[in-house]
Amino acid sequence: MSNQDIAQLVRGLAESARTASFQLATASTEDKNRALERVAALLVESGADILRANERDLAEGRENGLSDALLDRLKIDDKRLEGIAAGVREVVALPDPVGEVIEAFTRPNGIRIERRRVPMGVVGIIYESRPNVTIDCAVLCLKSGNASLLRGGKEAFHTNGALANVLARALKETGFPEGSVQLIPTTDREALNAMLKLDGLIQCIIPRGGEGLIRFVTENSHVPVIKHYKGVCNLYLDRAADPAMAEAIAVNAKCQRPGVCNAIENLCVDREVAAKLLPPVARALREKGVELRVDREAGDILRETAPDLPTTPAKDSDWTEEYLDLILAVTVVDGVDGAVEWINRHGSGHSDAIVTTDETAAQTFLSGVDAAAVYWNASTRFTDGYEFGLGAEIGISTDKLHARGPMGLRELCSYKYVITGTGQIRG
Amino acid sequence: MSNQDIAQLVRGLAESARTASFQLATASTEDKNRALERVAALLVESGADILRANERDLAEGRENGLSDALLDRLKIDDKRLEGIAAGVREVVALPDPVGEVIEAFTRPNGIRIERRRVPMGVVGIIYESRPNVTIDCAVLCLKSGNASLLRGGKEAFHTNGALANVLARALKETGFPEGSVQLIPTTDREALNAMLKLDGLIQCIIPRGGEGLIRFVTENSHVPVIKHYKGVCNLYLDRAADPAMAEAIAVNAKCQRPGVCNAIENLCVDREVAAKLLPPVARALREKGVELRVDREAGDILRETAPDLPTTPAKDSDWTEEYLDLILAVTVVDGVDGAVEWINRHGSGHSDAIVTTDETAAQTFLSGVDAAAVYWNASTRFTDGYEFGLGAEIGISTDKLHARGPMGLRELCSYKYVITGTGQIRG
Repeated sequence: MSNQDIAQLVRGLAESARTASFQLATASTEDKNRALERVAALLVESGADILRANERDLAEGRENGLSDALLDRLKIDDKRLEGIAAGVREVVALPDPVGEVIEAFTRPNGIRIERRRVPMGVVGIIYESRPNVTIDCAVLCLKSGNASLLRGGKEAFHTNGALANVLARALKETGFPEGSVQLIPTTDREALNAMLKLDGLIQCIIPRGGEGLIRFVTENSHVPVIKHYKGVCNLYLDRAADPAMAEAIAVNAKCQRPGVCNAIENLCVDREVAAKLLPPVARALREKGVELRVDREAGDILRETAPDLPTTPAKDSDWTEEYLDLILAVTVVDGVDGAVEWINRHGSGHSDAIVTTDETAAQTFLSGVDAAAVYWNASTRFTDGYEFGLGAEIGISTDKLHARGPMGLRELCSYKYVITGTGQIRG
Repeated sequence: MSNQDIAQLVRGLAESARTASFQLATASTEDKNRALERVAALLVESGADILRANERDLAEGRENGLSDALLDRLKIDDKRLEGIAAGVREVVALPDPVGEVIEAFTRPNGIRIERRRVPMGVVGIIYESRPNVTIDCAVLCLKSGNASLLRGGKEAFHTNGALANVLARALKETGFPEGSVQLIPTTDREALNAMLKLDGLIQCIIPRGGEGLIRFVTENSHVPVIKHYKGVCNLYLDRAADPAMAEAIAVNAKCQRPGVCNAIENLCVDREVAAKLLPPVARALREKGVELRVDREAGDILRETAPDLPTTPAKDSDWTEEYLDLILAVTVVDGVDGAVEWINRHGSGHSDAIVTTDETAAQTFLSGVDAAAVYWNASTRFTDGYEFGLGAEIGISTDKLHARGPMGLRELCSYKYVITGTGQIRG
């Protein structure tokens, strides 16, 4: 296809999504849930087709030399498919955000003003290899009354196609228009370019993937983008930290699941207590297999107090790196003010924690650190829609507009003002 | 200055704004109000300087052949200056949105989660000729704890400079950092280009101006943009409309102040009652001097029922034009469903109204029309921060992300999750 043909194809899909979005915006919760139940059922019923398509992607991936880790991300088996279907049923159980009256008031002239939650319209999702994103995102968009336009990665091309067939069948069987959920049927870069220019038809683009993808989308999109960027999370151990709590939270925040965005990448220790607090915490982390990349001061302290613990000198780039692995950068800072300044300079505004028994220090930290989630005496690992009790999320926004932190059904919505009068005119 | 020098200058200002934003984020309401009071006082005290600078802009504008309308927009006199100062004092009186707890809950594991309103950080304002925007925007940003970076138009260059001096003096005298409010001291296009690339330093760009400016910003910004786009507002007169109310609202929505974004540009009349309802409404509008641009059906009706009323045949472009003048496009539609479809196709999603006594028709309209504000039996002219009781606004957002409709202090804020625990870790 020529670039122009691809652009026309994508525009056609977006126009169809826009038309569908008007019907979706007024669809009842019951109808939307019926469609989602059907998606869950068909995922299992069509399991053989999906697994066959997935086998094709895996075979091509092996041919193209994809790493084992990438092949594992790509792989769908019966158990994973059941997990995806269970995820769909969890969304069925979530409350419908559409129509919720966020606030209501009556003005002196008698007009009544309600601010009501409404869908955004058409949401574009741009993602990479994990094919489960196809279902997760389509389902969250549908439940929140949005049409979705999905652009998956080339590694999962066949799997995504099979999953899109399931979505299309479920929607057709339950009376929803075809434009409600659409997968762009090409992974040509030009399709992505075309999609990013369709402001007016697409209301919001959510890129899910690596730094390169997010940067490309940010720099080229005319459509508003909500970024789910990297998590360089930080833990600060204050002079008034309870030592046992400091150790437990450090170990949990780093080691419980190092490959996720809310795990910590940097540990900041208050100079005032570093010589006493750092050695036991460092030892506990080492025992979990954590590589410690230390600044000069932390290195000096550890060499003196715990000469048996191996450490690596930190490079400048270590302070802003998302390791997603059992690696932790360690620095010594000048009290809570130093910690706030350090974290605001190096963190990615995702999740940052302080351990302290000093309420004043805690409040300084909580108000001073510029992040989606700030913690006092708890692990950063709780930044998650389910852990917050908000339900499934489409990602963790590191942006400050519209949605910050877990972005669930509510954050997939906009609002409108609904004004009811008895003939009021402006004087 | 070379393009590179300009880019460096703008980056320096943005970095200074970013630094200031951390201090502003935790500034007390009292301190912020003290700075605003000082701004209001200095505006009057420095009136002579401001008027002298304004006179220079006016002289240059006349030399460059600016229209009288543009020169009038540009002009500042003592009365306008007092009006600007009064506007500042109104912002002092508004509640501070920062720190407000939007929601709070405790999870089964005992962690307490608060969602607190916080400033966005650095807000970039890009605007054209009206110099009062310099003060209005700076003041709203300051009250909401945001640093602002202002880029005004070249026609108001000297006036904006004088106003920026007032802001800088007031901030210095009340202990705020220089970076809190800054005017970019050049109107070179390259400065705008540089500003739009500073994602990471600037959190939000708000363009205020014509369609060309907004389009340029949307297409070139890497920073999230909130658009305050044109208002193609629509009024639908339903078969069950009260005729007197229909006439009063049509006249008010079009004529009370035709040059603003919440005035109507299109009138849709239900086919079922068009022959009866359109003639008196058209006559009332004509009596106010409104030019009527009619589709074939509306034209036929009026020629037959009110042959003395002059009308103009509407062109296709009339349905999407923001006249900002005593001109109204008139079309006949097929009941409320036809109206919803017509408005969603032609309107700009700003403000749309239905006049009807039929609650079912009204609910169809209110939920079906995709606009920031939808009205039942009231004039669209109420879409305004003050009329809604929300206070001063930085604009009326026609976007669906973050802010929709009047964008005031609250909408200039983001939020953060503040989590308090007693040592909770994730299992």
